[in-house]
Amino acid sequence: MQLDAVTIDIGTTRPLVLLHSVDAAEMGAHPLDRVRIEDGTESMTGIVKRTDELVDRGTIGVTEPLRHVRGTVDVTLAGQPRSVRYVRKKLDDVELDADELETIVRDVHENRLSDVELGAYVSAIYANGLSLEETEHLTQAMTEVGQQLTWKGPVVADKHSIGGVAGDSVTPIVVSIVAETGLTMPKTSSRAVTSPAGTADVMEVFCDVEFSIDEIEAIVAETNGCLVWGGGVDLSPVDDEIIRAENPLSIDPPGQLIASVLSKKRSAGSTHVVIDVPYGEGAKVESLVDARKLADDVKRVGDHLDVDVTCAITHGTAPTGRGVGPVLEARDVLAVLEGDGPEPLRLKSIRLAEMLLDHCGVDASAADVLDSGRALERFRRIVAAQNGDSEVESDDLEPGEETTTVRADRSGIATRIDNRQLSDVARRAGAPLDARAGLVIHREAGEAVVAGDSLYTIHAEAAAKLEEANALADRLEPIRVRSKADALVERR
Amino acid sequence: MQLDAVTIDIGTTRPLVLLHSVDAAEMGAHPLDRVRIEDGTESMTGIVKRTDELVDRGTIGVTEPLRHVRGTVDVTLAGQPRSVRYVRKKLDDVELDADELETIVRDVHENRLSDVELGAYVSAIYANGLSLEETEHLTQAMTEVGQQLTWKGPVVADKHSIGGVAGDSVTPIVVSIVAETGLTMPKTSSRAVTSPAGTADVMEVFCDVEFSIDEIEAIVAETNGCLVWGGGVDLSPVDDEIIRAENPLSIDPPGQLIASVLSKKRSAGSTHVVIDVPYGEGAKVESLVDARKLADDVKRVGDHLDVDVTCAITHGTAPTGRGVGPVLEARDVLAVLEGDGPEPLRLKSIRLAEMLLDHCGVDASAADVLDSGRALERFRRIVAAQNGDSEVESDDLEPGEETTTVRADRSGIATRIDNRQLSDVARRAGAPLDARAGLVIHREAGEAVVAGDSLYTIHAEAAAKLEEANALADRLEPIRVRSKADALVERR
Repeated sequence: MQLDAVTIDIGTTRPLVLLHSVDAAEMGAHPLDRVRIEDGTESMTGIVKRTDELVDRGTIGVTEPLRHVRGTVDVTLAGQPRSVRYVRKKLDDVELDADELETIVRDVHENRLSDVELGAYVSAIYANGLSLEETEHLTQAMTEVGQQLTWKGPVVADKHSIGGVAGDSVTPIVVSIVAETGLTMPKTSSRAVTSPAGTADVMEVFCDVEFSIDEIEAIVAETNGCLVWGGGVDLSPVDDEIIRAENPLSIDPPGQLIASVLSKKRSAGSTHVVIDVPYGEGAKVESLVDARKLADDVKRVGDHLDVDVTCAITHGTAPTGRGVGPVLEARDVLAVLEGDGPEPLRLKSIRLAEMLLDHCGVDASAADVLDSGRALERFRRIVAAQNGDSEVESDDLEPGEETTTVRADRSGIATRIDNRQLSDVARRAGAPLDARAGLVIHREAGEAVVAGDSLYTIHAEAAAKLEEANALADRLEPIRVRSKADALVERR
Repeated sequence: MQLDAVTIDIGTTRPLVLLHSVDAAEMGAHPLDRVRIEDGTESMTGIVKRTDELVDRGTIGVTEPLRHVRGTVDVTLAGQPRSVRYVRKKLDDVELDADELETIVRDVHENRLSDVELGAYVSAIYANGLSLEETEHLTQAMTEVGQQLTWKGPVVADKHSIGGVAGDSVTPIVVSIVAETGLTMPKTSSRAVTSPAGTADVMEVFCDVEFSIDEIEAIVAETNGCLVWGGGVDLSPVDDEIIRAENPLSIDPPGQLIASVLSKKRSAGSTHVVIDVPYGEGAKVESLVDARKLADDVKRVGDHLDVDVTCAITHGTAPTGRGVGPVLEARDVLAVLEGDGPEPLRLKSIRLAEMLLDHCGVDASAADVLDSGRALERFRRIVAAQNGDSEVESDDLEPGEETTTVRADRSGIATRIDNRQLSDVARRAGAPLDARAGLVIHREAGEAVVAGDSLYTIHAEAAAKLEEANALADRLEPIRVRSKADALVERR
């Protein structure tokens, strides 16, 4: 069917085409069907939406990704992308081969799957799992569609956390220690998606984090390391799309998780990687058994793909630092580097750095590098290379001035620090967009508390957001205080 | 967050809201998240899309289903609908209870699920199946959200076909026979979705098919039967939405299929139903074993819900009539009623009518009612009651005048008549929108054929569509002719 193309913005990044209902019916095109659009030089695929109002008969509306479609075009009903057949195969619990997984990844990358099909893909992976072989093929396919970084020298160190822990900003400390020993550690990190601060958000308190590949290479050449935002380099582009489908379902199937992590590490050119697997109630991985299984699988897939992986299984129930939110976590990071700061953050950073140094065959003491102030110096050099103020001190970092301190309403023991609830309150206060918003935790789990003791302080930049955070904090109980007797028995 | 609501048409029937990226980020709202919108009197839920162009900061764009949202509204991040948890539970292969299935059905009905979640729902049902108990609960829940028809008298006859067979227009013949014996048979049918003609499309050749419930009651009071479009009455409103998600994945899980069929039958007030289960290569149900299993399950669920079901397992590989497409099928139907017409269509109609009469406890011979011309008289009365021309004869029904006759290029046996390929060619010729388009099949499977014999004739209303259909017919081989030797052995 010959149609005139017009560009229409309907607020989507997907390649949709709007057809008048009568044209669509004539073509036999239903919603979510695909059409092939040929303009004489190029052939593209669009996903059908039907409308009676937005386009007239004889016209095809195309969204942003198809904006170069112009003039009179030939539109024909296209078959399903092949990957839909493979998704169904996986729903049938049949193992997929390398070609089939590659086709799925390519179709996701080129935006050829509708949301229904993407939902079916993540559901199939979740319901029927991925074998180790499938995970390897998937990782390989996801690596291939991304950009690739390459580094001089045989050893490139990296770390990654499976995530889900608040105030867990060990990365800037680990990178500073490791880079100071002479190893190359070009670290790309994410911004917060559902948390109050990602490592990129924390680093942005100190310096720029968005750089081109050339700029990153220059920073690493100068300092051995970097702490930049991974979204600026397209290391595993299908990952975002898959996460977009996993998030509403709150699923994160292990095989897909491993493929996401390792494809990014491979694309980043990393050779030796420590992966932090926090486990426990409220963390992504709930039990020690699951954490061990995941760790073994990641290592095995890594072996196959020439990424040397070692895993740190850590406690993931309580925050590591005291601060939650970009500025408050940045303050903890800098305090640790200055020789002070929250002890759990200091200890976890040292342990991870030690593991990574050992894993890379470097004979150096992480604690010495940190305690001697050399890690701080290295951190300052990285901040300077990323256009930041290298003279900044932890006391300079001031959180939002609108504050509420939440106090214990009874005496007893702080039986539980709830990561997820603390994150929710910090986000409600404005983090991560309001960099100075968040909260400071005053108690650790197991500590004795007297009625009226402060438990945590909420910081916000604006009074209205503080109020919202207060209202949420009233409804939740992020730090739970129970009498010694109650702490032993929970009645239901 | 306080925002000003504006209505925006982006060609969707889903309750979407467009937020400026900065507002969305402040709210912590990601694409596919839900927000609660309160305008002082009412509280509604919308699914988030982010845009920088379509709305300004401080404004919320709402789509058609939310068009009554006006003025300044309070927008807050809403949690997931509860049904998403139940979808995940089903993905975990945990059996769902009546409440959980009811919640899913209600959320689908109220458009609360995003496409990703809907894709996950049908995937979960497909991958992990539904127990008989779950199927019963699902049927119950799907019935409850629809309109309900009620009829006087204890017996209301109905028939349904699982579908997938071309030229299978037995329904008008069966209804005419059954209604003539005095039974009530108010038949609602669908229009074609992926086929060249649904029963409603065929009936529309004779008369109107869209009526209100009151009008349907009047037609049935006058004639004992009706042959109307089911889309005019909202018997199982969530069905369309679920089919919309199943279609692109080409999945149709048995439990969901049973719930869809039986919820419609219950809502239609049917008490005694014959369900036609065609099976074979290319049909929806591929094997006799699967057909028997499906038939047993439908009967069992029917028992539980007070719908008395009997199933006819039929051959589903070849078309039943000779014509494919609205007018061509209508001509076959009328010819059979006139005492002529394709023998397989006549025989299948008689068998199904006999089964239904027997099932309802009526002692009458379907063949007698048909052969005596009484079924034809009853059909004419129904057509007249539905505002049609009751004097029409089969010879008056003329197919499209643009024709191509496809001939055998060798001598041998017609080894296979391919339903799906014939449907595709008929659609390409313009069916069902061009009512006179379609094709006429001249051979049956197993018949001897001499090179040059006509196999089938394509009819179109417009020369351009005939050309398109010819091109497709050239690529396919809807009627396969093989030498006797070749017919026994297939080389691959």
